[in-house]
Amino acid sequence: MAQQDRAVQTRDRIVTAAAGAFYRVGYADASITTIANAAGVTKGALYFHFGSKEEIARAVIDEQHLRVTTAAQEIWIATASPAETMMLMCADLAERLVDDVVVRAGIRLTNGGAIFDPPTRAPYDDWLLTFEELVGGAVGAGEFLPSTDAARLAHFIIPAYTGVQLLSDVLTNMGDLKERIGEMWEILLAAVAEPARLEELRALGARIFGTAG
Amino acid sequence: MAQQDRAVQTRDRIVTAAAGAFYRVGYADASITTIANAAGVTKGALYFHFGSKEEIARAVIDEQHLRVTTAAQEIWIATASPAETMMLMCADLAERLVDDVVVRAGIRLTNGGAIFDPPTRAPYDDWLLTFEELVGGAVGAGEFLPSTDAARLAHFIIPAYTGVQLLSDVLTNMGDLKERIGEMWEILLAAVAEPARLEELRALGARIFGTAG
Repeated sequence: MAQQDRAVQTRDRIVTAAAGAFYRVGYADASITTIANAAGVTKGALYFHFGSKEEIARAVIDEQHLRVTTAAQEIWIATASPAETMMLMCADLAERLVDDVVVRAGIRLTNGGAIFDPPTRAPYDDWLLTFEELVGGAVGAGEFLPSTDAARLAHFIIPAYTGVQLLSDVLTNMGDLKERIGEMWEILLAAVAEPARLEELRALGARIFGTAG
Repeated sequence: MAQQDRAVQTRDRIVTAAAGAFYRVGYADASITTIANAAGVTKGALYFHFGSKEEIARAVIDEQHLRVTTAAQEIWIATASPAETMMLMCADLAERLVDDVVVRAGIRLTNGGAIFDPPTRAPYDDWLLTFEELVGGAVGAGEFLPSTDAARLAHFIIPAYTGVQLLSDVLTNMGDLKERIGEMWEILLAAVAEPARLEELRALGARIFGTAG
């Protein structure tokens, strides 16, 4: 294996180990030593890749955002309906939040506004723009009411998702997340779906979020 | 002044100073020394009241929750309409989040699931129960659709509020919070208001959140 590949592997191992430690004991209590031990590397090797704990946390956030946005782009390319695209993206993120510790820790760190100064706003800005475009697409496709203000609705969906997953994390350790996001979409559709498309979109949401009766 | 009053005053001063420090530099970087200096007390006096930084943070959360729920109870007693009560509570909290550093820091600490182990769930549970009762009241008063599931809707409103204020904090330092919460209520009302009451409730929301045209 080339030296560079090994360096990439070591870096990945540190990011994954750090995500586990941040999630398990919290950012404040996860020491560099804990992270190095969990990754099976020396502190020297860790400091070769990262200058500080905050730098590692930012790498966890970046890796989380990369994984989630890559999956989101694939969904966008493969899906014709903008409303379906949004629901599939939300369901995909919910599944990753349950299954992937890097995603779970990265989102928690992003939401923990108390941790960094300045806080991390780039992932939120990305999602706001993506959903503004998709809501606009859903209006154009006759899925959402023509009176829908795309920027305002996107600027509610992203924070609402953030809050639903935050409470699901605190209250059920993400156990009810996908179901709660499905309920969020039921309410959103009742508010903004074109009446003629409401039943079809509701049935689609029930299938996507596994809440079909 | 009796010794007991002085002790209460000192404790309050520490809680307020700690809230400022947690908000300004983040929980991880706010040291006991910083907090004691900001409160104008010795470290010894601080340790007379609190055993650890986490204990101070939990006191900030408790004081925040006490202030906000006391105000919420007054609103509940003074307001006949359950839908109006909910909107007034949301607007009151938005104003306190802008004006009161203890409320602002307390909510940030509550939302920062990464900070404590176990995380603080009591404030969320309180709000979920309060809003479940109020949504039920709004259905009974003919303000919301009879088909509304009170527990499910409350379990969306509280997380959605949490997320809206979290993003408003990160993106605008709470500058757009009241307006964004007003937009949240426009969407909620479109989804669940009894059609015959929709315009009246919309106008009420526009007045409460200051978005009347």
